[in-house]
Order: sequence, then structure tokens, then C-alpha cells
Amino acid sequence: MKVLVIGANGEIGQHVVKQIQNSDEHTVRAMVRKEEQAEELKKKGIDAVIANLEGNKRSIVKAAKGCDAVVFTAGSGGSTGPDKTLLVDLDGAVKSIEAAEEAGVDRFVMVSAMQANNRENWNEKIRHYYVAKHYADRMLEASNLNYTIVRPGGLLNEVGTGEVQIAENLDERGSIPREDVAKTVVTSLTEEHTYKRAFDLISGETEITDSLRNL
Amino acid sequence: MKVLVIGANGEIGQHVVKQIQNSDEHTVRAMVRKEEQAEELKKKGIDAVIANLEGNKRSIVKAAKGCDAVVFTAGSGGSTGPDKTLLVDLDGAVKSIEAAEEAGVDRFVMVSAMQANNRENWNEKIRHYYVAKHYADRMLEASNLNYTIVRPGGLLNEVGTGEVQIAENLDERGSIPREDVAKTVVTSLTEEHTYKRAFDLISGETEITDSLRNL
Repeated sequence: MKVLVIGANGEIGQHVVKQIQNSDEHTVRAMVRKEEQAEELKKKGIDAVIANLEGNKRSIVKAAKGCDAVVFTAGSGGSTGPDKTLLVDLDGAVKSIEAAEEAGVDRFVMVSAMQANNRENWNEKIRHYYVAKHYADRMLEASNLNYTIVRPGGLLNEVGTGEVQIAENLDERGSIPREDVAKTVVTSLTEEHTYKRAFDLISGETEITDSLRNL
Repeated sequence: MKVLVIGANGEIGQHVVKQIQNSDEHTVRAMVRKEEQAEELKKKGIDAVIANLEGNKRSIVKAAKGCDAVVFTAGSGGSTGPDKTLLVDLDGAVKSIEAAEEAGVDRFVMVSAMQANNRENWNEKIRHYYVAKHYADRMLEASNLNYTIVRPGGLLNEVGTGEVQIAENLDERGSIPREDVAKTVVTSLTEEHTYKRAFDLISGETEITDSLRNL
């Protein structure tokens, strides 16, 4: 598969790009916002395109053309206000979904947030963030794409263990290294058990491939 | 029809409540956030219920039970931040849609904003507001409800003229008194031409009933 990674310069995105680049199965196209980010990636031999999630959808359609899958792992981040959360995490995500449809890309893997599907479990302090993720996920589910929605718990920068706990709804709270989130995303791409499914994800004791197969 | 008005204390909502109360065709139930608002309405002989759009959906379901239609005209307003826009204008609206479905109410009229359907025409300064309205409208269109989405232009507090211009997409910009928006909403309730339709609305030269029939 040729995979367009949207948010390739993000903390999870960088892991996804690296893992796809190291795989025999897939090739990567990294979508970034700035010229210098694209240059940096091209120096490493990575196919990079520039498009802004707050800009016109056409540039995202162009980036997606010729790809077999899209991974969406962009986010406005914690340091910007709720207005950017709406524009990037919600509208930017839905533009990407529409762009995939328009470019004829069928497969779409979304990086969401643990329990974004359940209003009752949203963190009060960043409730607006959960609203944005919630509706991006619902718009994806309502699309014609073959989607997977990965909802990780608290994100850590530790080295990945490759072992996780996965379920449609985890009661337990937990965290997970970004490297393992990326590995789950990349493994999901061709794992049919994850097609048209959404699941919570935290660190656990089962190897990622096995965990996804048992979903 | 018994009509639940969500946002009954808002500037458009007050007109909607008054117009339904004065009609022979419909009866009104006003949904408000505060006890004192409910008391005020009850003094005027208006059926009032208390529910918070940021709270649990169950109270909205309860408010909608026994009604034949819902009018959604709530909004967080211009003085609150984008976080409230997400929580009220988007999540509150979708909770109301879900509540209507759960309560068995089939008819739903949404007060949206002019051109909320076209990203290209969103006001840059309040782009987050348009994102919220856009996705609330899309969630309504994706629901099983018999909806009408009314998208008024710039809102004025002038006395209504009863004459409007209506189209699925108006190229022209314009404004409209809130009283006329309310009248268009109330007239739409039983006007079959507006079922499963969305339209822009500004002041014009055609009587509201005729304008809706020609949609």
C-alpha cells in the first residue's frame, strides 16, 4: 500500500512515517504543513507533500491521489485554543475524509482518543477536544470509506513494548507509548479484523498483531 | 403540533415561543437552562422545562417526550469562547437531535447560519462558529428525522416585515429581522416543501408562506 500520512510531523506521525518506511509491505507519502518540514523529509528520501488542513480541500485531494490508504494523525496540539481544535481536529479531519473519497482512496485509519465515543467519559478540562474528536469519528463512520478508528489512552514518549490491550470499550484507564500507537495503526492497515471498527488502546500484555486479530 | 423550543430564552427563541403561543395550530413547550427563566415563562402560562445542553442527554429526551416537533435555536452566543461553541452549538445540537430520535419526535427544525454549508463562504473571524453549525447540520441530515435547516443571514432586532428571500444557496449577502426568522421557522413546521431541505434566508419581497412554497 502507498500510505498518505496526514500530520506526518506530529509525535505519532513521525513514528508512523518511520515504521512504514522500514516496512517491506508499504510505502509512505508524508503530508506536512511547511516547506522546511517537506525539505527535511525529502533529504531522508521520503516522499513529502505540502498541504494545510485549514486551507482548501483541493490540496489534500491532490496529496491523496494515487495512494491506497490515509492515516490521519494530525492535531492542533495542546498549546493552541479551542478554535484551532475545531478547525484542525474536526474540520481538517473531515476535509481529509472527503479528500480520500474524492481521490478514490478507500482505506482510512484515524487516530482518535480513548472513549471519544462516550460523552460520559470525557475529561472535563478538555471537553471541547473530545467533542472535536467525537464528531470527526462519527463523520468517518458515516462515510463510504473502509475505516479504522484507533482510540489510544494517555500518550507517552517512552520506547514501545509492542504489547497492548485492545477492546471496543475498555473500562480501565491507561496509557501507551506513541511508538506502540503508531505500530497499531500501521499493523491495522491490512488487518481485516479492524475494517469498519473502532477500538480503545492502552499498553497491555498481548502482542499487537494478536491483539488486533482477537478484536 | 406540540413544539419543543430549545433555546426558548434566546433572541430568536423568544419570538418562536410567542408566535407559537399565538397560533391556533400549535402549542409550545419552552426548554430553558435556568429555574428563574422557567418560572418567568410559567407566569405567562407557557409550558416550560429545564434542561442543560451541556448536561446529560436524558433531560432533553424527557423534555421532548410527547412533543411532535423540536425547534433548535440555542447558541452559546458571541460573548463566550470557542469551547462553549463546541459544547453548545455542536454537541448540544446533536444531543437534541439524538433526544428527538429517542423520544420518538419526527420533525426537527434547526436554526443554522447563512452558508454554513459552504466552507468557502465562512466568515474568517468566527470560522469556528461555522464549523460547529456546519457539523450540527450535517449530523441532522444524517439522522432519521424529518428535518428543515433554516440558514438566516445577519440577524437584526428590527420589527419583522414578513417578506423574505429564500433559496438553497443565495449568492447575495443580506440580513433579516429575528422576528422574520422565527416566523419562517414556525411556518416551516407544517410546510411540506421544507421537509428534508436546507435553505438560506434573508429579507426580501415575497411573503414567507409563498416563499417557502416556491422553494
